Amino acid sequence: MTQLTLHEYALSGNCYKIRLTAALLGIPLERRQYDILKGETRTADFLTTINANGRIPVLQVGDRFLPESNAASFYLADGSPLVPADPFGRADMLRWMFWEQYNHEPNVATVRFWLAFVGEERLTPQQRQQLPAKRAAGEAALRLMDEHLERREWFVGGALSLADLALYAYTHVAEDGGGFRLADYPAVRAWLARVAAQPGYLPIDA
Amino acid sequence: MTQLTLHEYALSGNCYKIRLTAALLGIPLERRQYDILKGETRTADFLTTINANGRIPVLQVGDRFLPESNAASFYLADGSPLVPADPFGRADMLRWMFWEQYNHEPNVATVRFWLAFVGEERLTPQQRQQLPAKRAAGEAALRLMDEHLERREWFVGGALSLADLALYAYTHVAEDGGGFRLADYPAVRAWLARVAAQPGYLPIDA
Repeated sequence: MTQLTLHEYALSGNCYKIRLTAALLGIPLERRQYDILKGETRTADFLTTINANGRIPVLQVGDRFLPESNAASFYLADGSPLVPADPFGRADMLRWMFWEQYNHEPNVATVRFWLAFVGEERLTPQQRQQLPAKRAAGEAALRLMDEHLERREWFVGGALSLADLALYAYTHVAEDGGGFRLADYPAVRAWLARVAAQPGYLPIDA
Repeated sequence: MTQLTLHEYALSGNCYKIRLTAALLGIPLERRQYDILKGETRTADFLTTINANGRIPVLQVGDRFLPESNAASFYLADGSPLVPADPFGRADMLRWMFWEQYNHEPNVATVRFWLAFVGEERLTPQQRQQLPAKRAAGEAALRLMDEHLERREWFVGGALSLADLALYAYTHVAEDGGGFRLADYPAVRAWLARVAAQPGYLPIDA
């Protein structure tokens, strides 16, 4: 089997998505760490060889490189029960994964990164000014998830899919740094517990 | 065949992606217009029935609703030559589509919307303050595309895929409102011409 290496920063939720997908499917991954706080993904070597976009995660498949967390998870899970077999379900799963990257991650993950990793006192004036809007947009995303989950166990159809894993990654650590209060979203909390109860589940700090 | 209705605002590049995909595949679409400048996608009826996220496009498939432009395009093209048949190629196509929504659209499309649709003089102070950073990030996205296309005809493998259509939508109108100068990106310009020469091609204002 082709060697799979995850180029990552372990505490990034985007990297965790890929590890969690691999763990649930029993796929072994090599791991290589980069300190994003020290700019290790912006070196000339990284930009030339691994990802011209200067970001992790990147899944290395043999000598090919696949950036973007949700694309890498899709590669690992394509053809597995984590990807719905019917065309509408498959597209609806991608719908939630695109929504995650557009409406959820730039708010829920960015607030966590700023408050828990950078530190509020070290934010730039522009980051500080954006914080209230990102908090509000993150709360709107969590509320939309909560309303969706009031009537369903999983995001798409009747089974766990990559949509759940993509959204789990940053939702379950949304309280880091004091950014969000998950107690406000009871259907989300029940769903988080269902994901964490899956056979093969791996915590973010494993 | 199930009736397909596109809930859209015609000049949105995100809506155009879906029309262009359908046109290249010869799939008929009904169209229903909403004026996003008048808040027609934030009404109670729209939020309850069509998309709780209050955004277009939404592809209606019979009585089911599929938001997110790239997910709707995937639904239309799943199983067609616009989606690579090999697993790495399929994931690499999604990689560019996720990149488009994270790094390209929030900058290239937002600058166009602010300058050409809202008007620079009507921007809020916060939008005005974000404009230079969004311009710079948009230029970085166009430069990354240009470097990628210097060595390739299409974004993924050797053929046109949904990755090209997703990136074409806002790139080909990036000069609207004076936001970006495509003359700075010759490989991008040559690729835009290749997309526009495809049989069945449809312009954004058709």
